[in-house]
Amino acid sequence: MLEHGGTDLGPAVRWDFSTNANALGPLPAVQDAVQRADRCAYPEPSYAALRAEVARHLGVAPDRVCPTAGNAEAIRRLSLALRLSGVQEVWLPRPGYGEYEAAAQALGLRTRAYADLAALIAAVQAWQGSPGTGPVPDLPLIWLCEPCNPTGDHADAATWQALQLALLPMLMPTARNAPTGQGGAARPRCHLAIDRAYEPLRLQGADPIPPALAQSAWQLWSPNKALSLTGVRAGVMVAPAGVAPALFNQVADLAPSWVLSSEGQALLRAWAQPATQSALQAQRHTLAAWLAEQAAMLHGLGWVVRPSAVPFHLARPPVADLGATLASLRTQGIKLRDATSLGLPGWVRLRAMPPEAQQALAQAWQAWRLHRHPRQDAA
Amino acid sequence: MLEHGGTDLGPAVRWDFSTNANALGPLPAVQDAVQRADRCAYPEPSYAALRAEVARHLGVAPDRVCPTAGNAEAIRRLSLALRLSGVQEVWLPRPGYGEYEAAAQALGLRTRAYADLAALIAAVQAWQGSPGTGPVPDLPLIWLCEPCNPTGDHADAATWQALQLALLPMLMPTARNAPTGQGGAARPRCHLAIDRAYEPLRLQGADPIPPALAQSAWQLWSPNKALSLTGVRAGVMVAPAGVAPALFNQVADLAPSWVLSSEGQALLRAWAQPATQSALQAQRHTLAAWLAEQAAMLHGLGWVVRPSAVPFHLARPPVADLGATLASLRTQGIKLRDATSLGLPGWVRLRAMPPEAQQALAQAWQAWRLHRHPRQDAA
Repeated sequence: MLEHGGTDLGPAVRWDFSTNANALGPLPAVQDAVQRADRCAYPEPSYAALRAEVARHLGVAPDRVCPTAGNAEAIRRLSLALRLSGVQEVWLPRPGYGEYEAAAQALGLRTRAYADLAALIAAVQAWQGSPGTGPVPDLPLIWLCEPCNPTGDHADAATWQALQLALLPMLMPTARNAPTGQGGAARPRCHLAIDRAYEPLRLQGADPIPPALAQSAWQLWSPNKALSLTGVRAGVMVAPAGVAPALFNQVADLAPSWVLSSEGQALLRAWAQPATQSALQAQRHTLAAWLAEQAAMLHGLGWVVRPSAVPFHLARPPVADLGATLASLRTQGIKLRDATSLGLPGWVRLRAMPPEAQQALAQAWQAWRLHRHPRQDAA
Repeated sequence: MLEHGGTDLGPAVRWDFSTNANALGPLPAVQDAVQRADRCAYPEPSYAALRAEVARHLGVAPDRVCPTAGNAEAIRRLSLALRLSGVQEVWLPRPGYGEYEAAAQALGLRTRAYADLAALIAAVQAWQGSPGTGPVPDLPLIWLCEPCNPTGDHADAATWQALQLALLPMLMPTARNAPTGQGGAARPRCHLAIDRAYEPLRLQGADPIPPALAQSAWQLWSPNKALSLTGVRAGVMVAPAGVAPALFNQVADLAPSWVLSSEGQALLRAWAQPATQSALQAQRHTLAAWLAEQAAMLHGLGWVVRPSAVPFHLARPPVADLGATLASLRTQGIKLRDATSLGLPGWVRLRAMPPEAQQALAQAWQAWRLHRHPRQDAA
């Protein structure tokens, strides 16, 4: 009865490199749980069972878990709750996921971009070292993304330790930071939020975030990329271990009733199952192999390829006219993500795709080069 | 693999009178469309096809249609957008759906409750008639629900005409209402938002809202109650015909990316199909019969029953201890909605259920009465 378009308004996409979803597709057990969710009833409004199961999986207390309709919704809601509690400025990674900035702008919050963790550490140190002098931001919200989208970067342990050293003291609520004339409640000098959307897709190494820093941050989880079900909107926020009850309640109270759908709840519960975790581990082995092959293939075509900890990577094709190139590939059913809007003009983001898709991309690229520079290629 | 609880944390519910969902269950074609939605890809982010189809169904221009994750999400987002544009007070029906007040409170907005349309008309007239004297609210947002949840009330055409007469001039943007010192852009004296969640379940009569008033209001549609798929979160807001572009963009920009899931989009597209509308019409005939039988049955048991335009109604059982009564029914697998939190202590809300369920309720009620007053009933 209904026809579904693709993820954009263009012609049909045969090989979609443009999304960050796990290209292996959904695990059968997870897909089945999602399909079987009881859509004829409202979800249990406190999501108590879900919170307990996800808390067990993440190793945190259930009362720190707040269901969301996915990380985009969580980013909006946390930004709003912190704005209502006094935050006026947001620090965000650029290149980075656009939702941090979109949320800030829609709420009239100032933004300040940083290029990478080293730059962030320097900015925090400069701010910390000069209290009372210069333009000190009032209670900023700092966004981190680890592993980082769209770069696929992950910082090493030493960098994270340095960040913790600079940031942890600022995250501790103290009476010294209380706003004047507002009752004098203890508060931190800033808030930290870490986007963990791609942690379930980490292909190498372990989670590098020092536990004390992670415990002092809002952590946003949304496994729909890892589970290849991006059309299902579902996630959880984990509040800092010592979160002020008023702030936690504010975040919860700003959610619409039944913020998480029945199928979203089913997705998260399935994700928290040990069997799902084992199956995901096996998928990551395949994805790591695909990513390595794809990087080698692109390198062979003359593209610059950045290393990545997750099954997508940034690459720069050797062309001056990226738009025309992408349009040509698109007419051949191949879709790449132009990274311009992510802050990286000239670059594209590609997810790790199976060998057949890689071959299709290589052939389409060669055909486009031949079309563009027929003499040069014929020489 | 997964177990799903009911809609609360109690034992299993055999006969659920407590929700407002159409008790006939989902239409097969709609359920099929929802099941077949492509969950492996993000929905097309502009929802262009969906907006066109829903706009055609509702008879409005597509550029006035804003997808939502259901009316609860829409209520939250519209309240926020209007707060950011200067609204400080919210007028809401009491008894009424709790989300209007929850949204206002979470955002720090003042609230003012009205009992029914007559009371609202009087309040608007009093305000209109005395500009500059007394405590005049600054640019209130007024919520209406037609047909009304939880009462099932619908106002007659004369009442709506009276409301239009009082309200329409206040809704027209004029330079006279421009805030001083804010650039002087024309603005209305108030905003009107009408919750249409139950319009697709109207059992008698036609939509009574005068077109000019409807066109001047934000209208919130969410067909998941009518389609008996309340676990799917989906809806649309229709902006006023003359909405200021800045306000419309603010409402849109406050939505998280992919606010509507793949299955939510499929639900709304299926709803807009003429075949679905015909099938719903047939269901409404059955529901009207059930509601009439159920009202007669409850009346026979000594309950006070209020008339209703939709397939749920308010009723007051002849008991002093409503809580104990509902708990007893609950242990027998029958769930009613205590209307206390809706502003109606002593009352319950019941949806129209099939004869078998009505009989189960009658028997459980008789058993409870016998248990409570064995002598009186034996007399």
